[in-house]
Amino acid sequence: MISKSEIKLIKSLKLKKYRIINKLFLLEGIKSINEVLNSDFIIRKIILNKSSMNKLKPLSNSKIKIDFFNSKSLSSIGNLKSNSDAIAIVEMKDNFRKIKYYNYSVVLDGIRDPGNLGTIIRTCDWYGIKNIICSMDSVDLYNPKVIQSSMGSFSRVNVYFRNLREFFNKNDLFVYGTILNSKNYHEIKFKKKGILLFGNESKGISSNLHKFINKKISIYGNGKAESLNVAISSALILDKVKKIIK
Amino acid sequence: MISKSEIKLIKSLKLKKYRIINKLFLLEGIKSINEVLNSDFIIRKIILNKSSMNKLKPLSNSKIKIDFFNSKSLSSIGNLKSNSDAIAIVEMKDNFRKIKYYNYSVVLDGIRDPGNLGTIIRTCDWYGIKNIICSMDSVDLYNPKVIQSSMGSFSRVNVYFRNLREFFNKNDLFVYGTILNSKNYHEIKFKKKGILLFGNESKGISSNLHKFINKKISIYGNGKAESLNVAISSALILDKVKKIIK
Repeated sequence: MISKSEIKLIKSLKLKKYRIINKLFLLEGIKSINEVLNSDFIIRKIILNKSSMNKLKPLSNSKIKIDFFNSKSLSSIGNLKSNSDAIAIVEMKDNFRKIKYYNYSVVLDGIRDPGNLGTIIRTCDWYGIKNIICSMDSVDLYNPKVIQSSMGSFSRVNVYFRNLREFFNKNDLFVYGTILNSKNYHEIKFKKKGILLFGNESKGISSNLHKFINKKISIYGNGKAESLNVAISSALILDKVKKIIK
Repeated sequence: MISKSEIKLIKSLKLKKYRIINKLFLLEGIKSINEVLNSDFIIRKIILNKSSMNKLKPLSNSKIKIDFFNSKSLSSIGNLKSNSDAIAIVEMKDNFRKIKYYNYSVVLDGIRDPGNLGTIIRTCDWYGIKNIICSMDSVDLYNPKVIQSSMGSFSRVNVYFRNLREFFNKNDLFVYGTILNSKNYHEIKFKKKGILLFGNESKGISSNLHKFINKKISIYGNGKAESLNVAISSALILDKVKKIIK
């Protein structure tokens, strides 16, 4: 049986404060848990509805504890109303670990909406981008809505957090930044290596980062909307760059 | 002053049931209200923080009533925590009104996430698509999260609701449908007129609609995610088709 103190821990992990104190986060649903079992994330414990046991992948790591619980209670202690099969307690990665570079990285300045960050992670995973560097004021990677909307992709894409001024000061990669009314991205021949920089939902890229942009790029439409959602903009650029992503 | 019965009405409009009974919905924030003042939506009443009066566009329609309220109470009766300037009560359009066709329309089968529908409306507005036809089981257009994430674009794009089987049976436009593992959309020469059909977040396009698809199309990546978010897929296709959208 799962103890009262564990229920208390699980409930506390809905809040960023307690995720940071405990260096743990929650994962909900068998599908997500199975994806994370294939990753380098460390699962501490899986709490499972007994009838869902056969859906769980065989555990390669014998240190993972399993407990059983009834479905009604699972949805009451987790975040997802529809979750009745499983919850896992997972160790957070160090957001400041050393960045391993690939030829293209995505840098996000001030993404605040958890659905946007999750969707960007999912799209990066689709196109083979393995690195996302977020500014310090971004939404928390381990926010349940980020995890959920990434559809498991957070386990395959490395997400780091950095002070972006310091990051760009130390870095000499070619930076493409999306700025309204600049060069049409379809007319650009993207270099073999680079960084794709996207800005906050309402303010765009911070003005103090503009000097680090080597090429300002834009997406053009024929309609009347003032702007595109940032998850949409990043996907359009990634689709354009995909042939050179390694 | 705003009456108790009006506060009750406004609070009730958070629920679809009461939106349908009253044929009214809520709009929050001066920016959205100003955009809708430019549209063919009919605003019944605007409830305004007095200090925000100068931000409101001049009203061309003298039938619109204005009331004042203090900011703290505004955020407590509306949906948006951050809204302290204005709320409007707006008349819903008839979802079943006659469709006015343009050369390209977007058809959505079973979109359930309000953020996705709002983002798709915004993207359609960006690319100049004026028609979206939603299946009957889609999320409500007037859900506050749909309205909010459309960033005002719902006032410029016509959104209709239809039984899609009946709709396709009566319609002879060429239908492009996104289905995994079919023809790469970059290799397709899109016709001058057509319909772009996108499916539900988890199930895709309903199997009983597949027979109406004239050309199955796919988006390809190099990564490991199982699929793309539907708002992302639709944006990629729209960017491809944009040159022929009129």
